[in-house]
Amino acid sequence: MKKWNKDHVINTLPARKPDAHKGTYGTALIAAGSRFMPGAAVLSALACMRSGVGKLEMGIEESVIPYVIQHLPETTFVPGFYERLQNLQLNQYRVLAAGPGREADDETETTVKAFLKSDVPVILDAGALSQRTYIDRKAPVILTPHPGEFLRISDISMEELEENQQQAVTKFAVETGVTLVLKGQQTITAFPDGDVYINTSGNSALSKGGTGDTLTGMITGMLCCHDDWKHAVLNAVYLHGACADEWEKTRSAHTMLAHELSDLLPEVWKKHEGN
Amino acid sequence: MKKWNKDHVINTLPARKPDAHKGTYGTALIAAGSRFMPGAAVLSALACMRSGVGKLEMGIEESVIPYVIQHLPETTFVPGFYERLQNLQLNQYRVLAAGPGREADDETETTVKAFLKSDVPVILDAGALSQRTYIDRKAPVILTPHPGEFLRISDISMEELEENQQQAVTKFAVETGVTLVLKGQQTITAFPDGDVYINTSGNSALSKGGTGDTLTGMITGMLCCHDDWKHAVLNAVYLHGACADEWEKTRSAHTMLAHELSDLLPEVWKKHEGN
Amino acid sequence: MKKWNKDHVINTLPARKPDAHKGTYGTALIAAGSRFMPGAAVLSALACMRSGVGKLEMGIEESVIPYVIQHLPETTFVPGFYERLQNLQLNQYRVLAAGPGREADDETETTVKAFLKSDVPVILDAGALSQRTYIDRKAPVILTPHPGEFLRISDISMEELEENQQQAVTKFAVETGVTLVLKGQQTITAFPDGDVYINTSGNSALSKGGTGDTLTGMITGMLCCHDDWKHAVLNAVYLHGACADEWEKTRSAHTMLAHELSDLLPEVWKKHEGN
Amino acid sequence: MKKWNKDHVINTLPARKPDAHKGTYGTALIAAGSRFMPGAAVLSALACMRSGVGKLEMGIEESVIPYVIQHLPETTFVPGFYERLQNLQLNQYRVLAAGPGREADDETETTVKAFLKSDVPVILDAGALSQRTYIDRKAPVILTPHPGEFLRISDISMEELEENQQQAVTKFAVETGVTLVLKGQQTITAFPDGDVYINTSGNSALSKGGTGDTLTGMITGMLCCHDDWKHAVLNAVYLHGACADEWEKTRSAHTMLAHELSDLLPEVWKKHEGN
Ligand SMILES: Nc1ncnc2c1ncn2[C@@H]1O[C@H](COP(=O)(O)O)[C@@H](O)[C@H]1O
Ligand SMILES: Nc1ncnc2c1ncn2[C@@H]1O[C@H](COP(=O)(O)O)[C@@H](O)[C@H]1O
Ligand SMILES: Nc1ncnc2c1ncn2[C@@H]1O[C@H](COP(=O)(O)O)[C@@H](O)[C@H]1O
Ligand SMILES: Nc1ncnc2c1ncn2[C@@H]1O[C@H](COP(=O)(O)O)[C@@H](O)[C@H]1O
Ligand SMILES: [Mg+2]
Ligand SMILES: [Mg+2]
Ligand SMILES: [Mg+2]
Ligand SMILES: [Mg+2]
Repeated sequence: MKKWNKDHVINTLPARKPDAHKGTYGTALIAAGSRFMPGAAVLSALACMRSGVGKLEMGIEESVIPYVIQHLPETTFVPGFYERLQNLQLNQYRVLAAGPGREADDETETTVKAFLKSDVPVILDAGALSQRTYIDRKAPVILTPHPGEFLRISDISMEELEENQQQAVTKFAVETGVTLVLKGQQTITAFPDGDVYINTSGNSALSKGGTGDTLTGMITGMLCCHDDWKHAVLNAVYLHGACADEWEKTRSAHTMLAHELSDLLPEVWKKHEGN
Repeated sequence: MKKWNKDHVINTLPARKPDAHKGTYGTALIAAGSRFMPGAAVLSALACMRSGVGKLEMGIEESVIPYVIQHLPETTFVPGFYERLQNLQLNQYRVLAAGPGREADDETETTVKAFLKSDVPVILDAGALSQRTYIDRKAPVILTPHPGEFLRISDISMEELEENQQQAVTKFAVETGVTLVLKGQQTITAFPDGDVYINTSGNSALSKGGTGDTLTGMITGMLCCHDDWKHAVLNAVYLHGACADEWEKTRSAHTMLAHELSDLLPEVWKKHEGN
Repeated sequence: MKKWNKDHVINTLPARKPDAHKGTYGTALIAAGSRFMPGAAVLSALACMRSGVGKLEMGIEESVIPYVIQHLPETTFVPGFYERLQNLQLNQYRVLAAGPGREADDETETTVKAFLKSDVPVILDAGALSQRTYIDRKAPVILTPHPGEFLRISDISMEELEENQQQAVTKFAVETGVTLVLKGQQTITAFPDGDVYINTSGNSALSKGGTGDTLTGMITGMLCCHDDWKHAVLNAVYLHGACADEWEKTRSAHTMLAHELSDLLPEVWKKHEGN
Repeated sequence: MKKWNKDHVINTLPARKPDAHKGTYGTALIAAGSRFMPGAAVLSALACMRSGVGKLEMGIEESVIPYVIQHLPETTFVPGFYERLQNLQLNQYRVLAAGPGREADDETETTVKAFLKSDVPVILDAGALSQRTYIDRKAPVILTPHPGEFLRISDISMEELEENQQQAVTKFAVETGVTLVLKGQQTITAFPDGDVYINTSGNSALSKGGTGDTLTGMITGMLCCHDDWKHAVLNAVYLHGACADEWEKTRSAHTMLAHELSDLLPEVWKKHEGN
């Protein structure tokens, strides 16, 4: 399988344009968090705003707003998101993401359906992942399951997956027409055109609650600042792992918190910018 | 066009007076933030309190108070601000600012009108920017639009603006009698006396939501500690950009959050103090 | 009495497994905090998530949720914990802890009883400590009283305790079948098999409110990542003290806050990892 | 006038006793903060817990609790403080402080009266300062007015004060039997026995809202860990200023926030500990 490594990242990370304004990088919309899992909204928002987005709007239950603002006063909120979902002009956004900190309930499902009807890239994670047929659309759909979630959303059996991961994910990506980011020790990203890459960064500091929510945010943000969306996905997965590698240099892998990946990203990203 | 550069800043930044008490630098009042954009109140407050003010009072909806206190326990609040607006003794303040995180709604408009009737400097941004005639007043009025906002509040067309920015902003400033800070890659500040400066700091790390709210706060605070208000505006714009330049030395421009400008200000400001 | 020192820690701290996922280290459940002592929930949660756990769920009154999320967006919450206590599948958790920031009231007592009926390790502290007979169970029960609390939960008199601490705690541990962590300047840990160790780290920076809540969280987390639960307890006590020792190198012992132990843990832990 | 300088501090700061537990340093109670000035509760609490106290309980309106916990999960709260004020066992506390972020209203006045009836040291600041006769008590009363507040609580005129500060404050302290900390560029501390000291640390970074609240907290905490209460007051004033001096070494004096004094205290204190 092809590897995505440091050199690829250095060659594909975009420079921030000197004459950019926040509109240049667009507005992302993330639908995440709920009453008993509010923190996932925080984690994905933090990661997104650190990853090149222009502006971030959160589509969240009003009770979750305070948690996000505490960590991220730069965020704004869609008034009455779940009530007004059908009437939102979703094409005004550069990228749409749903799922972190969400149960697979009716509201989540309605969100996903609305998002998929838009013309912009959609990322689905956690509660937004379910078995579904993907309608034909030009803009990419990106799914980010861990193995347990992947088995739930596909017809593939655990045995098939363990036997040949690459084949299983490629088949799924090509047949459904979506991009599959199968998360694990070595995350595999399979594109609908049959292209597959294995990630080469990261370590077991990531085996703790919340790191997946952070990844969703990073992919969302990077889609906003990359010209090539495939590079955006691959670079998000790589830098997410590279932050954990930075952590481990001086701190125990047992001790990292997911939001600290976002704290580490500014310097880690800089180290991957050619100049 | 005249440039405002590092040397100008070094020559005009005031020393903090050894025998000052908080009254020496006065109290600023900022009216900012709302239910779905509460963070702008936090961002402008943080920036203001880092910029030489004596005390800061926030004129905000009570639901926004918790967000500010979390980041800034040093702030106090005007009880029942919007209800009591007509009865406030606005001349007790050193500087008044309005607009960040506000819609251009009735409450905002009433705030602006009340502020303009006072005898103290007024800064208007975001939701407080609208087409209006400025009544004659001795204290300065400072507007901080980005190009989109500038087109909305003036009769100037996009073509005119693109053709000759300097001429457009100077005309506006002189004719309306206000100071115009036209924000962009190279922010232009035009004073009502015809003086115009182009800023020489900053980079595209600033092209992200919230950086404008931070600038409003910095101008507010600097007006409190400068003797010459024109220097206050020019130095705020410069140092705001200089913080972004400091960021970029070791961190990717894609990753900065607006509130981090305020974190960087203490050391950046120190580097511009003659000693 | 046998000492537990730096060499023991270095020899017994587990490496984080390269192929681990968050399930590998399990989910801990902490029942802590209340209306007028909400911070203990924060302190124990922070410490737990820094100590090798896979995921953390908090069993708390809903009013305490915001406090935890502010510090730790990585945490999730058991919906309606106290109402649904009898119906929770407690064996799904790797470790259960109760008591920090809790009064010794009915709710706390019901929690303890439910926890003790499970098959997983249970840690009891503060309000969860009371005189009780421990039903026979395979999984360890760990009590973490300070001397005042120990006198309250045992029949031992202050005189007996002062005369021969080792004998008093060993007797209690062996007779009741629980592990006793008697906290103090030199914390003594007595296991039900008669094994007793005295801790060799720590200093009086720890003599401040909240440090005990932090210890409870550290034990909880370390039980999740150690194979040998006795090592987990001893290492938690040791590293808790070692963080205070790190503090004191450059900062006054009068000034430490309990949550800062958790801030220091990542680097302190790393220094105790063989490589 | 006698100066209190670095050498005095080094000679009088207590070591933290190796065998101390949190009870050794006692519990402080601070009554501070209100609906529109909640942050003062945070500032005084932070400073107190950094200054050697064993435990801190806050006597605050319930709506202010969240603000304190966000910054300081180590604090607990007196249930129904203002309702239960008359029935509280105030002598259980080591030190009582009132006033920061309080109006001079009925609740504040009732608090002060109850505090003064106790047998423990009392610190009064801000809204708790008013003209009153001090009943005879053995434990010290410490007032911390700035000049404006001092004029309000004494019969001294501005002219008298400006002419001879030392004489004015000494007279007040001796006649009323209280300790007067007259805050300013060079804070003067006058004891009821006629002893007077002028502080030698600090700078105009302190001339900003909230620094006085921080001082109140520092005095409160230091009274808990000093054997000699006069040294506690003098050292608190000195270290408060020394933190501002530390700030100014690398950061502009215009930019400091009051809560950052408490961030700086651990290292500044350490530098004044003989070893
Ligand atoms: N042992 C490991 N080594 C490298 N990456 C890991 C490891 N465990 C988890 N991860 C990553 O951590 C994240 C976990 O996501 P989730 O399972 O949704 O919380 C994914 O990005 C995984 O690729
Ligand atoms: N590419 C850029 N280079 C320099 N400054 C910028 C750039 N983009 C935005 N800014 C500044 O960032 C702020 C954006 O304000 P606003 O549009 O109100 O959020 C203004 O101060 C702009 O001058
Ligand atoms: N003087 C001291 N030296 C070492 N450790 C201490 C000292 N005082 C308290 N501790 C530790 O601090 C924690 C206090 O727990 P608690 O009494 O529940 O708040 C325990 O872990 C004690 O072992
Ligand atoms: N110019 C200054 N130089 C030194 N200390 C100051 C200065 N201005 C204010 N302070 C101190 O800052 C605090 C202000 O308290 P307050 O007036 O209650 O907010 C007091 O401790 C003053 O001594
Ligand atoms: Mg996940
Ligand atoms: Mg703006
Ligand atoms: Mg305890
Ligand atoms: Mg004061």
